[in-house]
Amino acid sequence: METNSVSPLPPLDAPLAMMENEKTPPGTPSVTEMPPPPDEKRYEEDSENAWNCCSWFEYLLIVILSTVLLIGVLVLTLFWVIFYRGGFAWADSPQLQFNLHPVLMVAGCVTFSGFSILLYRLCRCIKHLYVKLTHMLFHACAIPCIVMAFLAVFESHNLVEPPKPHFYSLHTWLGLITMAMFAVQFIVGFFSFLVLLCCENRTYSCRSAMVPIHASFGLANFMMAVATCVTGLVETERQLVGETGLSTRNSEIEHYIMNSMGVVFVALGIIISVAVRRSNAPATAKVYVTERLEIN
Amino acid sequence: METNSVSPLPPLDAPLAMMENEKTPPGTPSVTEMPPPPDEKRYEEDSENAWNCCSWFEYLLIVILSTVLLIGVLVLTLFWVIFYRGGFAWADSPQLQFNLHPVLMVAGCVTFSGFSILLYRLCRCIKHLYVKLTHMLFHACAIPCIVMAFLAVFESHNLVEPPKPHFYSLHTWLGLITMAMFAVQFIVGFFSFLVLLCCENRTYSCRSAMVPIHASFGLANFMMAVATCVTGLVETERQLVGETGLSTRNSEIEHYIMNSMGVVFVALGIIISVAVRRSNAPATAKVYVTERLEIN
Repeated sequence: METNSVSPLPPLDAPLAMMENEKTPPGTPSVTEMPPPPDEKRYEEDSENAWNCCSWFEYLLIVILSTVLLIGVLVLTLFWVIFYRGGFAWADSPQLQFNLHPVLMVAGCVTFSGFSILLYRLCRCIKHLYVKLTHMLFHACAIPCIVMAFLAVFESHNLVEPPKPHFYSLHTWLGLITMAMFAVQFIVGFFSFLVLLCCENRTYSCRSAMVPIHASFGLANFMMAVATCVTGLVETERQLVGETGLSTRNSEIEHYIMNSMGVVFVALGIIISVAVRRSNAPATAKVYVTERLEIN
Repeated sequence: METNSVSPLPPLDAPLAMMENEKTPPGTPSVTEMPPPPDEKRYEEDSENAWNCCSWFEYLLIVILSTVLLIGVLVLTLFWVIFYRGGFAWADSPQLQFNLHPVLMVAGCVTFSGFSILLYRLCRCIKHLYVKLTHMLFHACAIPCIVMAFLAVFESHNLVEPPKPHFYSLHTWLGLITMAMFAVQFIVGFFSFLVLLCCENRTYSCRSAMVPIHASFGLANFMMAVATCVTGLVETERQLVGETGLSTRNSEIEHYIMNSMGVVFVALGIIISVAVRRSNAPATAKVYVTERLEIN
């Protein structure tokens, strides 16, 4: 007897909603007592599980706010560097070369990586493989940004007189850990979720076990990146206050711009971690409900 | 016919494992089609749902690591203030009065609040009301620490010559937001989860709806507190580097101690958010499984 035992109380929070699909791929009969394949049509017809206005509002709020903040922080960094720090250069001036560092790092570690994580909330109706490929593509775009940003700051430290020490401040410590985590996460993720797909059924249990680890580690990496950005911002801001003081009107406006950037960074760290955890997105609820369809 | 339709695949991640019990309190018959009351004995006997070594190892690792870091960061702050910043005073010296600020803020916003959050992982076998009361008690202990820390830094800013401006840096902006969030969270939590318990059945749906909001907001508050600590630490460190340079061996050791504190703060922000999300604690699995017991 097959019974639709959908509970009227869907779970309120998501077990890392992103990547949940990986747990129920098609064609994995080897796992004993697997629940039957998703019966999405039945779910769609079930009015009790339909999204209410409140859930839609929350979903849209999180997605729109995240998108605005991810783009906003990059625009704010560009604006600050171009209008207050003199723009960019390579090799001519250590200061202008240094300016490439914040812009490229924010682009790579925050904006590209943030959108890459957010994809699992935005594109739930697209085929899962395409979401995975786009997720990897966004992270792949982040790599040249991070490498260029690292080289820019490394060179500029050597160019100034006297040369600045490398890897001395808290920002550099956190930055090194973040880059190492990013590299490990990218390589392991690439092999686990794309290369191992070539023998889908045999690697199911391995990939399934990797999902929560990859998601938690990725979120931790994003939070590390945010912490690194905030420490770098505060270090630069303190240096500028030490150099110019609070004397001119111009530097006071710059101070408020930098403080606002800091607030946006922290807000992003919080909202992205909330976005991937909250489950009341339609697709996640669907995955959950399909887990509750049992044959008795 | 009552059937135990426990799935062999327990969910891997927790929907904010903490406070999940609030969703299935005893004696809430008014909610339509509620699942039957938990049949814990049946669950305990079910060998398929028993924790394996790996789950226990992960649970213990997270709990022990969180505890060590929460106590460690307070000890490290005390050590730094006493041995490198000259200890404490009130009203005699602005500098020594300022020293109360980091210690009390770390104690209140990080150690007490962190343990208060972690309680939902540590004390799952204790009656839920006692856990809630202890959770509130820890937060209540944090209040005098935060008030004293705030007064200490406010007074010390006024005492120095010339007086320092208030609420100017990123650290102060984040600190103000954190304190405001803490106050809102404490008041709303106190009324929602303790005062409203006086009419348990009538307020069930309201309290149930509040659980994920309270948990997400609380975690966001903890992450804000960590971000505030890190920015305060970096601002102080930059000021010290500006004053003393990197000349003496003593100040170099102090620099490494402060960097280590920063790394511990960031690690805490990540590990506490992972700790409350991971569901493979025995009690959480239990709640989940009871949700899957359906009458067909």
